[in-house]
Amino acid sequence: MAAKSEAMDTLVNLAKRRGLVYPSSEIYGGLRASWDYGPLGVELKSNLKRQWWRAMVQERDDVVGLDSSVILAREVWEASGHVDTFVDPLTECQSCHKRFRADHLAEAYEEKHGRPPANGLADIACPNCGAKSSFTEPRTFSGLLSTYLGPVQDESGRAFLRPETAQGIFINYLNVQQSARRKIPFGIGQIGKSFRNEITPGNFIFRTREFEQMEMEYFCKPGEDEAWHQSWIDTRMQWYVDLGMTPENLRLFEHPKEKLSHYAKRTVDIEYRFRFAGGEWGELEGIANRTDFDLTAHGKASGTDLSFFDQENNERYVPYVIEPAAGVDRAMLAFMLDAYTEDEAPNAKGKLEKRAVMKLDPRLSPVKVAVLPLSRNPDLSPKARDLAARLRRRWNVDFDDAGAIGRRYRRQDEVGTPFCVTVDFDTLDDSAVTVRERDSMSQQRVSLDQVEMYLVERLPGC
Amino acid sequence: MAAKSEAMDTLVNLAKRRGLVYPSSEIYGGLRASWDYGPLGVELKSNLKRQWWRAMVQERDDVVGLDSSVILAREVWEASGHVDTFVDPLTECQSCHKRFRADHLAEAYEEKHGRPPANGLADIACPNCGAKSSFTEPRTFSGLLSTYLGPVQDESGRAFLRPETAQGIFINYLNVQQSARRKIPFGIGQIGKSFRNEITPGNFIFRTREFEQMEMEYFCKPGEDEAWHQSWIDTRMQWYVDLGMTPENLRLFEHPKEKLSHYAKRTVDIEYRFRFAGGEWGELEGIANRTDFDLTAHGKASGTDLSFFDQENNERYVPYVIEPAAGVDRAMLAFMLDAYTEDEAPNAKGKLEKRAVMKLDPRLSPVKVAVLPLSRNPDLSPKARDLAARLRRRWNVDFDDAGAIGRRYRRQDEVGTPFCVTVDFDTLDDSAVTVRERDSMSQQRVSLDQVEMYLVERLPGC
Repeated sequence: MAAKSEAMDTLVNLAKRRGLVYPSSEIYGGLRASWDYGPLGVELKSNLKRQWWRAMVQERDDVVGLDSSVILAREVWEASGHVDTFVDPLTECQSCHKRFRADHLAEAYEEKHGRPPANGLADIACPNCGAKSSFTEPRTFSGLLSTYLGPVQDESGRAFLRPETAQGIFINYLNVQQSARRKIPFGIGQIGKSFRNEITPGNFIFRTREFEQMEMEYFCKPGEDEAWHQSWIDTRMQWYVDLGMTPENLRLFEHPKEKLSHYAKRTVDIEYRFRFAGGEWGELEGIANRTDFDLTAHGKASGTDLSFFDQENNERYVPYVIEPAAGVDRAMLAFMLDAYTEDEAPNAKGKLEKRAVMKLDPRLSPVKVAVLPLSRNPDLSPKARDLAARLRRRWNVDFDDAGAIGRRYRRQDEVGTPFCVTVDFDTLDDSAVTVRERDSMSQQRVSLDQVEMYLVERLPGC
Repeated sequence: MAAKSEAMDTLVNLAKRRGLVYPSSEIYGGLRASWDYGPLGVELKSNLKRQWWRAMVQERDDVVGLDSSVILAREVWEASGHVDTFVDPLTECQSCHKRFRADHLAEAYEEKHGRPPANGLADIACPNCGAKSSFTEPRTFSGLLSTYLGPVQDESGRAFLRPETAQGIFINYLNVQQSARRKIPFGIGQIGKSFRNEITPGNFIFRTREFEQMEMEYFCKPGEDEAWHQSWIDTRMQWYVDLGMTPENLRLFEHPKEKLSHYAKRTVDIEYRFRFAGGEWGELEGIANRTDFDLTAHGKASGTDLSFFDQENNERYVPYVIEPAAGVDRAMLAFMLDAYTEDEAPNAKGKLEKRAVMKLDPRLSPVKVAVLPLSRNPDLSPKARDLAARLRRRWNVDFDDAGAIGRRYRRQDEVGTPFCVTVDFDTLDDSAVTVRERDSMSQQRVSLDQVEMYLVERLPGC
């Protein structure tokens, strides 16, 4: 839908060239708005998920994890309201026949003009071909992807691919609460793939039909829900900042009351300044007060009592739910955009040249340490390979012995490797190596038997 | 299909009761042969995947990672042969109308009688109702699950959910080889969900329609493929043994030449002695020599040159591929079955009683350390909670202050927690705690400021 900004173009090119993100099925001409994660991308994405899991599940004594199926019983999506209400208004430009979501067109108009279109779609020019008054009346379109289980493709075997991981948590609420012996308040966190039949996927990995979510449902006592909601908004905002995101590129967006989802009492998004051509800010994460909507709906539809008996206060209630729901792929995009910097560094002749550097928090960096023997030499190579093998037991390590050393530093800088270790001819005499830090480019001589602990101290939480 | 064995029944019950694995969509009566992983199950599964990734990707200098999409371009599955040949022979019992895979019925017959059925299906009684000569002629049935992308459910938008992660690797071979600057031989590893429209899912998490795979495609020079194949068979067998699996419960199964898949030159399975009622051994992992079948097929279908130019030897060839392909869920089942043990332990009165203990390798254990204050006491609880919070920065930690201490030890034993740390009244005087080891049940007094390092030394690689 939106043309890409210059920064985005740079990142898309870098991502493909360096093995972060490739266009999916590229040898077959690609599958629209679908992406595969390369050797560096899979590491960055894993690191991001691990940081979420550590902060949201492992380090908290009030949250446990879950991994539920993509394909759940059809009744789940009927009770949750998805079959009826997970629909988008689809419109088509009668001039170029491209399809759009009518609500997205109106939002883009409002962002640009500061007011909603007075005459609806009639006021909006087609973003693809520029035609005016060319849109059809919107019709509803289900965002659920469906498939058929079993040998015959009939209605009895019809199933949906989950459009959110959240419902897998709600239907397991009772099993988790009982088997993990939990009292209210407590949360259940989950990371996994979801699928939506998006009409207008785009903006690189920001909006895709297949995507990964990090969702946590926090079950609390009605009446304490608003305080918990605010607390989770603060906690989640701080998570992005603690992982190095520029605070000025983050903001909260309060959903207007009249636009809230059917299940929500209040929803606040954490947005990042993506600077898309079609809109400056984009959602990273939605934090919703889902009330007791889901547990009540599933309790009723399944005939199962999902209320909680509070022994201390001798009262029974259906818990309220606060949901911080983040997108893995778009968080990864935001962290990459935020970290990408161009500065200057001296070349081999001491002259300043442009340097591209991804200043990722080391916990997110796909490669933690690069081992670089100064040259391909029968004395240096085995020492360098031994060191790389040793460091690989702790971290993802790159080994690179091709080309000039300055060029190899640049290669590591642009993918965010925090430390490069150079094995040079002095190493044969002093059994020491040069450790170079990414952002300051400062170098320090460290003895070979100390280098692992030197790095351990400088890579906390990695 | 097969009735569950006693050991399997015990495990299924334990798994649900303790939050390892729940029947999926259970409040809606369940979705046949579909399972969700609870708080402990998700940790065990993550640990298993992390061990695979460490051994197969991170610690090797010749393998890199990938994370490709579940939904790929349709051409991928046409070129790979899946659209035409990924079909199973489906037969139905005319007496009870239950459906079976004809090849599975024949295999079960052969395993039981030591010879194949002389008259085909006519010799086999229905495993469900016992009727004889009741099966229909088998008809082919596609194992691919399909869905529709875009607003209209017509053939133009038809797409398949991947039945294996491998093809996502083949179509990205060139992008990975170039962006990661790799020479032959090298491998690409991937972990992710796959989907198959199984006719007879069953045996708990052994065969499900939605499952997770750990696959690695190792690209090598033709002529060196057989040696690499043997080397990977040895390496993979050793991986299970190194993670604590009983060698006597593992065996290799060589696929007969006449039953090889269309792409394979040789395939060897690693089997585990699951002791299913319907068959003693089951596949954990298949290790296939896929030759140049896939790269040749995709090169031809896409018009892309997927050959490799070997600069050192000045020759060009399409690489051969060795594929170790393991199932995450069935590996988890095997590790649980293998680790589950019943022995005896003294009760509070010193009398020996039955003890259930899951002797998992600590690297796989869902909980690494349990912190147990001897009683709910305003002096003990804060000390115990502080310790738990400190240990949570490294590991998944359980905190349990409910019930008799012996009972709490049993709870940790049966889910495989390697260490329990008890905070007791002496702790208030000597600032020390009691650390109990799971298998030996031996106890040792360790000072509070040493306990973290004490555990670090005893939990290597965790």
